[in-house]
Amino acid sequence: MPELARSRRLRATPFTDLVEAEGVKAYSVYNHMLLPAVFRSLEEDYHHLKRAVQLWDVSCERQVEICGPDAAELIQWLTPRETSRMKVGRCLYAPMIDQTGGMLNDPVILKLQEGRYWLSIADSDVLLWVRGLALGKGLDVDVWEPDISPLAIQGPLADEVVARVFGVDPTDLRFFRFQMVEYAKRSLVLARSGYSRQGGFELYCPGGAFAPMIWQAIMEAGRDLDIRAGCPNAIERIEGGLLSYGNDMTREDTPLECGLGAYCDAAGPYIGQAALARERQEGSKRGIRSLAISGAPLAPCGERPWTLFTKQGCEAGHITSAAFSPDFGVNVALGMVARECWEAGTMLEVRTPAGIRDAAVREGPFLSS
Amino acid sequence: MPELARSRRLRATPFTDLVEAEGVKAYSVYNHMLLPAVFRSLEEDYHHLKRAVQLWDVSCERQVEICGPDAAELIQWLTPRETSRMKVGRCLYAPMIDQTGGMLNDPVILKLQEGRYWLSIADSDVLLWVRGLALGKGLDVDVWEPDISPLAIQGPLADEVVARVFGVDPTDLRFFRFQMVEYAKRSLVLARSGYSRQGGFELYCPGGAFAPMIWQAIMEAGRDLDIRAGCPNAIERIEGGLLSYGNDMTREDTPLECGLGAYCDAAGPYIGQAALARERQEGSKRGIRSLAISGAPLAPCGERPWTLFTKQGCEAGHITSAAFSPDFGVNVALGMVARECWEAGTMLEVRTPAGIRDAAVREGPFLSS
Repeated sequence: MPELARSRRLRATPFTDLVEAEGVKAYSVYNHMLLPAVFRSLEEDYHHLKRAVQLWDVSCERQVEICGPDAAELIQWLTPRETSRMKVGRCLYAPMIDQTGGMLNDPVILKLQEGRYWLSIADSDVLLWVRGLALGKGLDVDVWEPDISPLAIQGPLADEVVARVFGVDPTDLRFFRFQMVEYAKRSLVLARSGYSRQGGFELYCPGGAFAPMIWQAIMEAGRDLDIRAGCPNAIERIEGGLLSYGNDMTREDTPLECGLGAYCDAAGPYIGQAALARERQEGSKRGIRSLAISGAPLAPCGERPWTLFTKQGCEAGHITSAAFSPDFGVNVALGMVARECWEAGTMLEVRTPAGIRDAAVREGPFLSS
Repeated sequence: MPELARSRRLRATPFTDLVEAEGVKAYSVYNHMLLPAVFRSLEEDYHHLKRAVQLWDVSCERQVEICGPDAAELIQWLTPRETSRMKVGRCLYAPMIDQTGGMLNDPVILKLQEGRYWLSIADSDVLLWVRGLALGKGLDVDVWEPDISPLAIQGPLADEVVARVFGVDPTDLRFFRFQMVEYAKRSLVLARSGYSRQGGFELYCPGGAFAPMIWQAIMEAGRDLDIRAGCPNAIERIEGGLLSYGNDMTREDTPLECGLGAYCDAAGPYIGQAALARERQEGSKRGIRSLAISGAPLAPCGERPWTLFTKQGCEAGHITSAAFSPDFGVNVALGMVARECWEAGTMLEVRTPAGIRDAAVREGPFLSS
């Protein structure tokens, strides 16, 4: 397999040396930054994540800070999600779309103060989009990328690790809420959130010398819990139906097609409002579904989606993410499926690199949190 | 060395299968797309590029098309480069900056027709920046990413290959001009341009089944000229002083600091105009220079810039790209150097992973075209 050619353009994180010392075997690149993808093996990482606790370098979840008198107006313009009643200390998953309804990103919004927000972004340059809009419209806001590098603490033992490191009882912290915690006289945002179904936290670390210190403190606190360096796991997130921007959703897809209709509840005005109203009236032509692919374990779906067909041989969509699940004993998958065949139980065929297989449309994900 | 984890988010190109068949050994990721970085070895690729001719998959140079009644006004707003006198058939290298003067990208603009342009972009989501500006300002333009995947034909024998494939005499085509050529009844943009100092062309290929066909035709036509699959070569481009966005210039750097003052000649209005005027008045505080680093061959500079110091131990900037040059017998480098020590001939010190070395500031690049 080809290596990753290293250069400054694919930014290191404050944790890259630590991640390499833990034996990272593969990287992805996300927001122009290194994102670990495999440590021991996809399967071994998967079993460990479900059993114990992992520390993830997700620095590539860059923050776009928006602050100023027009911040609230701009935030609402950016998303179909209703943001007007958002309270300080809340996280909000917010699809971000263009005028045609196409997905541009799916950040989590954190409201830090009145008039001050972070967008914790997926893999596209939201900084440029938001700055362009603000400059074009003449809005009174500052938009920038602060030096914040999130760590995720994920897995069933995550609560225990967080309690030990920060001396707080995290059971009080509800899902998608955040609180400030102290470490070495620094105040940090700690949110109950993360890109797995195993539970856990995201810790928004300032860069510089502080970052490796907190990494080591967390690893030390979790040693007897078998904490390991880890990363978002492709198998687990497909089982859990967690969509990945750029993989399962692109600019070609709308949030309604992506099953994110519940997050499109804003009164507006917001960008793409007319397009979504039209799609709601006409009905979506396709939608993302979880699917089970039959037969022997498949290598994960790579750059190229696998085409879906009906049993009559008509094109029916495509699989965008797939991997063999040891726990479910089946190839788990996510894909965009045409309306005509998106009902749960529909049997389709899929053209994989290992030949034609059966693919069964499911009611929902294999796993929920 | 860690592998690159493959997924749809790191897009394949129409040429990826062909590139893999040619034995690509390393990839970079550029505009969310695979960019080959090494075939045989950095050194072997380098010698071959200077001697023969190579075909490069630079599909990751994505095009952002801007068309409509307000296109010319928007194009000028996007860059400090004067664009008003641009003729159809011309390419224009155009720094793109924000309000503070920070570099956002350095595309080549191609004027296809009156009111219709391509930006052939470096590694940032210019599509989002331009769409944001246009939407915010209410400009009457369409902005989109067409299905165009450039190939580069680079090296001293590139003219001969192009003459054979397209039946044209390319000596008539001047640097940074383009013409339409025909292949298999398709009309293609062929420009005399490319990211090397060895001369050659960029061919803007439509995607789909046509793309592999033209690849194979070019490889076939160049067989007796020892044509090979290749890619932008780190050693050659550092020798030639070709800057790389994300490596040598970032949002932290202005075009004046990057030595691009000659391309900042617009009357305006354009974004960042006041910031550049201020910098011109006060003088830049630092500038990009070519440097020669003493001692044994160094491994290429990776994610982390190498800090420069004066002989008195004061910080003097940083090296952002470096590699050992077989032809010059020295470690060639590019870096941002403080005004106090940017004169040619200044001897600095640089902290490399192999220890402290001497670094001499040069008058210009090692190599010119």
